[in-house]
Parts: sequence; C-alpha cells; structure tokens
Amino acid sequence: MTGSSVEGLLTRLRSGEWSAEEVTRAFCRRAVLAHKLTNCLTQVFFDRAIERAKWLDAEFATNGPTGPLHGLPISLKNQIDVEGEQMDLCYVGWVGRVAKKNAVVVDCLLAQGAVLYCHTNMPQALMSGETVCNLHGRTLNPWNRALSSGGSSGGEGALIALHGSPLGVGTDLGGSVRVPASFCGIYGLRPSYNRIPFCGTSNAMQGFEGIQSVLGPLSVSVDGLKTFFKAVVDTEPWNLDPLALRMPWNESAYRLVEHNGGKSLCFGFNRNNGVVKPDPPYLRAMDMLETALVAQGHKVLDYSPPDAATGEAILNSFFSAAGDEEVKRECALSGEPPIFAASLASAPAPQLSTHDYWQLCLKRRHWVKEQLDDWEATKPRTGTGRPIDAVISPTAPYPSFRHDDALENLYTAVCNLCDFPSASFPVTTVDPALDVKANAHAFASPFDKLNYERYDAEAYRDLPIGLQVYARKGEDEATIRFAEICAAALEASK
Amino acid sequence: MTGSSVEGLLTRLRSGEWSAEEVTRAFCRRAVLAHKLTNCLTQVFFDRAIERAKWLDAEFATNGPTGPLHGLPISLKNQIDVEGEQMDLCYVGWVGRVAKKNAVVVDCLLAQGAVLYCHTNMPQALMSGETVCNLHGRTLNPWNRALSSGGSSGGEGALIALHGSPLGVGTDLGGSVRVPASFCGIYGLRPSYNRIPFCGTSNAMQGFEGIQSVLGPLSVSVDGLKTFFKAVVDTEPWNLDPLALRMPWNESAYRLVEHNGGKSLCFGFNRNNGVVKPDPPYLRAMDMLETALVAQGHKVLDYSPPDAATGEAILNSFFSAAGDEEVKRECALSGEPPIFAASLASAPAPQLSTHDYWQLCLKRRHWVKEQLDDWEATKPRTGTGRPIDAVISPTAPYPSFRHDDALENLYTAVCNLCDFPSASFPVTTVDPALDVKANAHAFASPFDKLNYERYDAEAYRDLPIGLQVYARKGEDEATIRFAEICAAALEASK
Repeated sequence: MTGSSVEGLLTRLRSGEWSAEEVTRAFCRRAVLAHKLTNCLTQVFFDRAIERAKWLDAEFATNGPTGPLHGLPISLKNQIDVEGEQMDLCYVGWVGRVAKKNAVVVDCLLAQGAVLYCHTNMPQALMSGETVCNLHGRTLNPWNRALSSGGSSGGEGALIALHGSPLGVGTDLGGSVRVPASFCGIYGLRPSYNRIPFCGTSNAMQGFEGIQSVLGPLSVSVDGLKTFFKAVVDTEPWNLDPLALRMPWNESAYRLVEHNGGKSLCFGFNRNNGVVKPDPPYLRAMDMLETALVAQGHKVLDYSPPDAATGEAILNSFFSAAGDEEVKRECALSGEPPIFAASLASAPAPQLSTHDYWQLCLKRRHWVKEQLDDWEATKPRTGTGRPIDAVISPTAPYPSFRHDDALENLYTAVCNLCDFPSASFPVTTVDPALDVKANAHAFASPFDKLNYERYDAEAYRDLPIGLQVYARKGEDEATIRFAEICAAALEASK
Repeated sequence: MTGSSVEGLLTRLRSGEWSAEEVTRAFCRRAVLAHKLTNCLTQVFFDRAIERAKWLDAEFATNGPTGPLHGLPISLKNQIDVEGEQMDLCYVGWVGRVAKKNAVVVDCLLAQGAVLYCHTNMPQALMSGETVCNLHGRTLNPWNRALSSGGSSGGEGALIALHGSPLGVGTDLGGSVRVPASFCGIYGLRPSYNRIPFCGTSNAMQGFEGIQSVLGPLSVSVDGLKTFFKAVVDTEPWNLDPLALRMPWNESAYRLVEHNGGKSLCFGFNRNNGVVKPDPPYLRAMDMLETALVAQGHKVLDYSPPDAATGEAILNSFFSAAGDEEVKRECALSGEPPIFAASLASAPAPQLSTHDYWQLCLKRRHWVKEQLDDWEATKPRTGTGRPIDAVISPTAPYPSFRHDDALENLYTAVCNLCDFPSASFPVTTVDPALDVKANAHAFASPFDKLNYERYDAEAYRDLPIGLQVYARKGEDEATIRFAEICAAALEASK
C-alpha cells in the first residue's frame, strides 16, 4: 500500500477498495520507520489524522469521495501552519507556540479531501541546502546516512523516499524542493510565484520579497505533481490569499498547445552553468535523458543561461541583505547557537540600506530581462519556429555532500530568480564504474575547484541523480507536462 | 476629428475615411494648443509621428490596417522610453540623455499600429499627486489654471482633457493615473501588477518593489481603457518583459461571467475611508452614481475598507523607506533644487535598514490579507450569493488643490497596496449651489481637518469630479467592464 504511486492510492481510495483509515494508518506506521532511519519528522498528529480519515470514510459511505485528494495522506514541511499544532519553525525558543490558524494551503488541501498527519524537518532559519537544526537535529539521506538529504525540505525528501508519505508540501526559495527531491530520488515541483497560496505559512527572512518562497509538492511519483497543483489551484486560492494569482488550472497549457501539442519539442540542455561543472553522474544522466528524448522524436541543443556569475552574486547579496538580525533574535529566545552551516542568511554580513537593497532589486530586473531575451534568441536555432520549449539541467552540481560541507545552489536558484516553474525528477543512480572522476578542468570559481576535488564516486555510490526541467514564468502546467514527458521517455528507454 | 472618442477615431481610421496622417497632424496641432494653455508637454517628435503615419497609410493602401490601433495617436508620460528620443525623467541633469531602446510597452503599441508623437509632464522624482519639475515647469489644470492638474501623470491628464491626445499612457503607483484623470475629467485605468509590461520604462525610486508602479491608459472616452489594455495584452508581452504575467485577454472575465453576467450587481460604496472625508461634490457624485446604478437594477451597500489608518502608515513608510538619497543624487547632477512639495520621496526621513524594510513588507502582507478577508465577508450582506462585485469610491477627497498645497492619496493607493485594478471615470462637475460646505465633523486626522477647512466650492467651480470602481487583484477585464457599466448608467440617468 505504501509502495503505491499517488494516483494508484487515489484510484483505490476513490473506488473504496482501500479506506482512508487503513491508508492513513499504513503511512503513519511507515513514517515512524522512516523517521527512525533518517530523523525526518518534527511533529506527528496521527490521532487527528485517523479521526479525519474516519470522517472521510463515513462521508464516502453516504456521499462518495470528498474531493480529488480524498483520503490521501499528505506530509507538511515544518513551517506550514496547522491550527492547534505546534509551530516551532525549528527554533528552540518557539517550542510551545501553537498555530492559531491553518495556512491557506492547508485549508485548500483539506477542502479537497487530504489527510494531514505530520510535520517534517528543515534547517534552522531555512536558508540552506542542508537540513539541520538544534531543536530537531539532522535529517539523513535515506540512501546513505553519512550524506545530506538536501534541503531545505530535506525532511520531506527523506520521508517520501522511504514511502513514509506519498506526497508532501515543501517550500522553494533557491531550490529547497528540487534539491532534496533530487538527493532522495523522488519528484518535486517549484511553481511560479503565487500560483500556490503561501499566505499563512510561517517563514524565515520574513518580508523578503526580492525572491519569493513558493510552496511546491514533493512526490513519490510524477503524477503527484499535477494532482497536487491542480487540486490546490481548483480551490480558487485567490479568495483566501491576497497575493495569489487569479489563474485557474490551464488545461490547454498542460496539453502544450503553445508547444506543438508536445510533439517534436526542442529542449535546451545546460550541461555547465559556467559557475560549477556538474559531477560525472549528472553528465551521464543528461546523456541518458537526451537519448531518451531523441528516441521520442524530440530535439536537444546546448543551452546555458547567460551571465551565471552575476546571478550567483545577486542571489548571495539577496540572502545576506538583512544580515543575521532575525536569526540572532530567534536564537536569543532560548540561547541556542546559530548554525552557520545551516544558513546562508546567518552570515554576519553588514546589512544593506533600503536604497542599496532597491539597487539590488533593480540589478536583478536587468539580469532577468537578459535571461528572457537570451531564451527568446534561441528561436533561430531550434528549427521548430519557437524558442527552446524548456531547459533541462542538473538540480545541483553534486549528488549530495557530507554533512555540513559546502554547497551551492545556482542550478536551481536561476529558476527562483527568474520565476521559472521547474520540476525535478530522478534519472539514474551513481555507478562508480561509469561515473569516474574526470580530468581537472579550468575552474570557473573556487567552489568549482572544491567540488571537483571532493568528488568521490565510491562515496556517492547508489545515490539518486535527478535533473530538472523548467519553462517560462507562468508555464506551470506546461512544466508539469514536460516532467511527465521526460519521465515517460526515460521509462521507455529502459 | 480631435473631438472623437477612441473607438470613433479607430473606426474611421480602419475604414479609411480618415488617414493616419491627417489624424496625426490634427492631434499634433491640438497638442500644441493644449500645451500653450497648461504646459503639459515635455517633448514632441511630430516629424517622426508623421513619417510613421505616412507609412501606416501606405500599408493600409495595400494590406489594410496595421493592428487594432491602426493610426491612433498615443501620447506617453515622460518616463516611457522611446528609442532615439530624449529621456530626461524631468531632471535637469538628465538633459541630453537619449533612450537607447523602446520601453516594451512602446514596442507593443507600435506593433499594434499606434502613432507616438509626444512626451508629457510629470513631477520631479515622480512621487506626487502634483505635476511640477524644475526642467519643464508646472502643468496646470485645464479647467482652472490656478489649480493642480493632479499627478503624477498630470501632463497626460491636461493634454487629453483638451483633446490634444485621445489616449495616453501614464503610470500609477499610488493613484498617478486615476487622480489626474479625475481632476481633468477623463477616464483612467490602473491595471494589476504586471499585466501591462513595465520593463524598459524609466522610473524614480528604482528597484522599489513593495508597491509596483504600473502602466495604465488615460483616455478621452471609456472605450479607450479596453482598447489599450486588450491591444497591449494581445501582443503577449511576457515574451518581452520577464515580469509580465502570462495572462491573455480574458473575454469571459470581461463579460463578467463570475459576476452574474453583469446583471443585478452589488457595489460597495466607500463614502468615507476613515482618514479623510471627501468634499461635498464627491458625496453628491456618489449619490448620482448610486441612483444611476439602482435604476439599472444593481444594488449598492456601504463599504469602507478596514483599517485605513494602517494602510496610510504603510504607504508613507514605503515612500520614505529609502530616504532622499536618489533625489539628492539626481539633483546634484545639475545643482537643481529638490522640490519638496513635488515629492513624497524627497522627505529627508532616515533610511530603513533592509531588515526593517522587510518588516514593513510583512506588515503590508498582513494588512492586505485583512482587506481581502473583509471583502469576502460582505457575502452575507449582498443578497447575490457573492461578495460585493466591486467597490466605488472617490479618487481623492478634493476636486483639486492650489498649486503646492497638501495632498493625500489613500483613496487611490488602497488599490496599489492591494493590487486591485481600478478605473476612474468622470461623473459630474462642481456646482457651488449644490456642493455647499458641510458642517464640521469629528476630524479623523490632521489632513481631514485641513481638507475640510480649505474646501471652497467657488474656488473649485466647474471642476470635474471623478469616481473610481475597483475589483479584485487580477480582475482587470472585469474592472474595465464595471467602468463601462458605470459610464453607461450615468449616461442613461441624464
């Protein structure tokens, strides 16, 4: 039962073959096992979940299923408020704080029939690709506990990979859904700004809007991406979240009407962003995907977004713009130490003035325009009459890393800076026989050198390797479909 | 010819009854007259416009009209870049700077067949409801030159009111389209964020994204709002502007499908926002509109957005968050003095740190949620099964003001804070016999007292009085339709 895909579960729940209660109990049990192995949970509310499941079953008996998510257990990243449950944001000093209201997304999921049963771990102050905090400890990679689960939605990644949840909700500000999804071997989606309602979700770097954090699903199967996205958007979240865009589910976008109906697509392959060269297994995964897509009649060309170094600089400036004032304040509540490795935001850089912060926002606007124009400029190269339909790239330059080791997130963060919707999906696993260390290249950055030097195929053996596919701002439905096309092509090429 | 409505012009241009060249020449002449009376222009490029019109006429002879705006002269607020023309942003020190590229909106308008022929005045540093700068001087109200044309798109307001342009493009960050439209007796639209592409437009308070400035039309006739909006959106501006939303023209939203097809609507009437009581002619205009709408089968109920004082405080904090660093820097280029009255942004307040600026953004998020929830909570009061369909309010608490006098903009700025699309339209004119000064009321604010005391019906005689109608974020098409419904109801009630 816990080995099912999201649609596999929903089909049996909708037909009554499985009751919501038995499915919920199964995932509660399995979540505990996953937690024992990886320390992925921060809170459980199983009793409440089972009550809810019983209610859904009673409803089912008389009225049939309650919405498209009827009976589906969904896990939530720690920061997503559930009324009456603790909201600690992984700070020691927040223990005992109880959420007064559901986050809007929680109301949407409940309205569509979901069963919520646990909160999952994330890093202190949230701004990390690693998942560790003083309150709940560290979440380990389910494939190798010596390595990171990724972050910041690392609790979700580990829990879902171990089938302790079929579908979870994470957040993504720089890659925080896609990186743990990739490190743990599952699927993830970073939607465009304000398609999925963020309102009522607790957050670090509160009030930062230069890049907006977005809620997105992590899923054991690719079908979970559409299921989650459509179910939430179908609740018309703009009636509850003042920032949510009035953009209903767009079926013709999902059917790729603007992309030749999904036939003979042209994908841009970013094999090196010019800041860090990806490790060998990613390049092999890119080759595998290329072969698989070409076999389905699609086309591939090399494409790297321009001026990645400026993007990296803007990103780092954004993350340190307000200094460490917030982290220090929250840590001071209990006396817990700030965890430097866990948080880019805790870098004690001098704060910018508002004037200088606005200059940074302006710089980002120019950079993003450059990205769009460059994408448009691919039109003469594709042979389709369109610019490239989507970009494929690694989700990170490394399969994972040792706990507290250095990290870098531009492969994913380019999407956050540009508001490109992006889906990550597993492609292969590290095979030391195939993924041998390359000869040294001309290093583009100190991190490029560090990452090259630390690569050790044996240490990464059997780790999942995920890629992402991303499209243009607002093309969420198309991105979901592109991920499905990639997953199907990979399956067909096996 | 220059007395025509926008659609009147376009119909004759499309049929070939009038050539683009003769229409362009007529508006160039008339624009000069309007400028002599009100000082509304900052730059003309008539030769270029006539060349363009001749080209359009030649195209017409062989291929028919070039797009939905074929041959329509459109004026542009000073800040909208036109390649090869001066871009001085109304700073003395910018004289001689030439725009290297068209603003995206310029490309969109040209693609749809428009003729661009002049730039219009705006205040120094843009942040004002008054239109005055050292470089180009002051734009006067076309109905009474002792009074303000409003701002910041005051040049557009005066030019269009005097039929020197049928349609112009302004910007609105706190009311800068709607206030001058209202003061000058014409129509204006503030679209939602990122429906009309702002990219490539020069701006003050660069990089400020807490409230986004938006481009919107000012028009001699209500039909100009839809014509402009649809023509621009139909060019798919998201391919040129990285922030533009992928939201095509929504015809079913325009037909008010979510609002009972436009029948038996319920409007919320905001007769006093709790910060400043509107002057008597506004209250009379509200009564006139109520009568007109009720006669068409619509319903009206009292509705004031909650917690206006907090909205006002957030607004003022945003506008002063970066202090006067930018204004001082730009003024220092030439030694021109900062014009305090012209610019809220020039207030020499201490700058906020980025941390405190983010706190302000967060406060705004909470406030906006409160606004949305309050709107939703009207549902049981309307009798329609829906919340109020739209809100009607004054565009300002005063019909105009003496040059350099105090001003306040929360009536319009509530829409900028909440991203509510809003259209303003003329209702009546000040009649001293009807609009007598009221008895003093309990003043809600120092400005409320000042505004009450300075009210003088005789001084405001014959000035236009405009109201605005606004709907929810993203309901741009519905808002345009609501404005047409209001205008038609007023016409029918005459």
